[in-house]
Amino acid sequence: MKNIKFARRMQDAEPSIIREMLKLSLDPSYISFAGGDPDPEFFPISQILSFNKKIDEDSNILFQYSVSEGNELLRKQIIKYIEEWGITAELDNIIITSGGQQGLDLTGKLFIEEGDIIGVEGPSYMGAINAFRQYMPKFDTVEMDDEGISVEEIKRRIEKGYKYKLIYVIPDFQNPTGKTMSYARRKELLELAKEHDIVIIEDNPYYSLRFEGENIPPIKALDDSGNVIFIGSFSKVICPANRVGWICADRNIIEKYVIAKQAADIHSNELSQLQTAHYLENYSLDEHLNKIRYAYKEKKDAMISAIRKYFPNYIKYTNPQGGLFVWLTLPEGWVGEDIMNKCIDEKVTIIPGSRFCADESRRNNIRLSYATMDIDSIEEGIKRIAKAFKEFERSKS
Amino acid sequence: MKNIKFARRMQDAEPSIIREMLKLSLDPSYISFAGGDPDPEFFPISQILSFNKKIDEDSNILFQYSVSEGNELLRKQIIKYIEEWGITAELDNIIITSGGQQGLDLTGKLFIEEGDIIGVEGPSYMGAINAFRQYMPKFDTVEMDDEGISVEEIKRRIEKGYKYKLIYVIPDFQNPTGKTMSYARRKELLELAKEHDIVIIEDNPYYSLRFEGENIPPIKALDDSGNVIFIGSFSKVICPANRVGWICADRNIIEKYVIAKQAADIHSNELSQLQTAHYLENYSLDEHLNKIRYAYKEKKDAMISAIRKYFPNYIKYTNPQGGLFVWLTLPEGWVGEDIMNKCIDEKVTIIPGSRFCADESRRNNIRLSYATMDIDSIEEGIKRIAKAFKEFERSKS
Repeated sequence: MKNIKFARRMQDAEPSIIREMLKLSLDPSYISFAGGDPDPEFFPISQILSFNKKIDEDSNILFQYSVSEGNELLRKQIIKYIEEWGITAELDNIIITSGGQQGLDLTGKLFIEEGDIIGVEGPSYMGAINAFRQYMPKFDTVEMDDEGISVEEIKRRIEKGYKYKLIYVIPDFQNPTGKTMSYARRKELLELAKEHDIVIIEDNPYYSLRFEGENIPPIKALDDSGNVIFIGSFSKVICPANRVGWICADRNIIEKYVIAKQAADIHSNELSQLQTAHYLENYSLDEHLNKIRYAYKEKKDAMISAIRKYFPNYIKYTNPQGGLFVWLTLPEGWVGEDIMNKCIDEKVTIIPGSRFCADESRRNNIRLSYATMDIDSIEEGIKRIAKAFKEFERSKS
Repeated sequence: MKNIKFARRMQDAEPSIIREMLKLSLDPSYISFAGGDPDPEFFPISQILSFNKKIDEDSNILFQYSVSEGNELLRKQIIKYIEEWGITAELDNIIITSGGQQGLDLTGKLFIEEGDIIGVEGPSYMGAINAFRQYMPKFDTVEMDDEGISVEEIKRRIEKGYKYKLIYVIPDFQNPTGKTMSYARRKELLELAKEHDIVIIEDNPYYSLRFEGENIPPIKALDDSGNVIFIGSFSKVICPANRVGWICADRNIIEKYVIAKQAADIHSNELSQLQTAHYLENYSLDEHLNKIRYAYKEKKDAMISAIRKYFPNYIKYTNPQGGLFVWLTLPEGWVGEDIMNKCIDEKVTIIPGSRFCADESRRNNIRLSYATMDIDSIEEGIKRIAKAFKEFERSKS
């Protein structure tokens, strides 16, 4: 080929730095706080695979092409699961996706025209921004405070003439900040969306990983107008490799997702859908969740107490009530990429904050995940970062 | 939501008629020639699942997030598999996709800008047209003769000023016609692509299902310039529900596919990738293929001999050397949709030819699949269609 012309949407697409960091993390001498992975120690593999005992010579038909909306047994189990969160759904409100990530990609495909304004939290999940970016919207980054995205600021911008097509939020234990949106803020955001006919994309993969405090209903549970599209996933609560996620929305929206899903990959892997349905039907997900919540709380506590012990007090940190992430705010002028390189010298991996923002701001932030390291390594890793900070300060002066 | 504004690309997306037909096919009183499904009787399920015996308590890491390019063991097995077809590839020439369908969707994402001209065979696979359509190209349908797409016609159109971005072809046992592109035509098409810097998308899911005649090399096997992107799949040769396909292309193109794949669903289901790799490594795919080739040949022969026995001689048909499909050409003025309805009255399902064409022409064609019915049902189904033809002629006169 003399001259390959990729579509404009692909021209500045670059590999994610997280993937590059993950390659380093394969070296066991590194302590990894870089990934967004859950702890594999807790994957209930034998329980998930127990479905396989039910496969016999009459099961061939299970390996045929299946429907794009997903396996009905699994959709029924998901309806029960999210009912506990206050979300009411019927079969035709649910489509199975290949992980939450596909839910984001299909959402971009369904809604985004070039130039549409997408409101996103500052910072936000880069995988969502990358998925949406391929449909060429304009991202509008809105600051967060301790209650979540600033609805006041969104209002001000709407008054200035901004027309938001979608607002994308991760209300619980947000990636990357670990912050949770308050109940009041959820209500305000929903009211605003109703008033201005904005679609809220609620990406909530960590919802059932709360290990402290009281559950706050998902925004979808408060939605009486159909403005909210809920994107869920079993990647963090069961395991990622099975790629089982779902979308919950109004029927007329799900119909369009089904068409987009059919064009995208016809349907998701059927065996893992059946395994997941069987697992949810025959085992206690609650018991499993209690176990992993306990483990993640121990890890988070270990990280916070190591931060308090080893970091200078001008390093600010979030203290999440669930999920996988702690977000550090470094002094003004510090650059996450430089810190990352100093950390690599100390054999610990982190992700610079700029990588979580559509506009590549947040230069003086870094994200830490405590999920996959054991307690001792968490303390050791924080010590190494403290050393990297010192090296950074030394190199500046 | 008062007013949901989907993106333009989704506004006229409609559910596929094949899916609707498949619902009818679930009723056992119907004989189904409608689907594009392989015969589930031959899925090597216990062999595929034999990998599971290797899963033990150390296997949790297999269920963690994995790389977007796909499992390395599987990519190595695919390299061996397509080497037998004359395609030379290294690891970084291969990406695993969730079935061939995802290969098509990602291809649209990588290359198609609104208004780009995509050359397609007339008729062609509707799943590809639907996948590409979401990126809003202009389809240019080019007639086929018995040697495949008319390269002469493409040349004439290029001389008239058409600038093709992609040309999409299914060279072997094409869906829906069952036709195979000749060696000479493959060479001509490739030369044309090189001369005019056009990307050839070679979709070849049926390649190893040849049951008569001599293999012709895939276009990719003749490609010394990187103009060809090969989309492969195990859906028809192993089983569809596992959703394992691949793309083979130049390294710099695969790099972009990896980025698009990461945004689309991060990676494909890992267990089915491992199962497929294990199957290919430990069992004889050749032996399996010989079995299914023999079975499909028997079915095809049964369909052709029933057509000769029951259909009036003004019904034209293709006689494929592999794959799953026979294509009927009815007299001018007959309408596939009307025939379909008459067929439903006779309890046999078929797909009207218009559904395989971007411009909804081919009104007097229908597609038959012989893949999933047994020999007796194939004869009975053709008898029923012959009756439907008579009913149609009666209703016209």
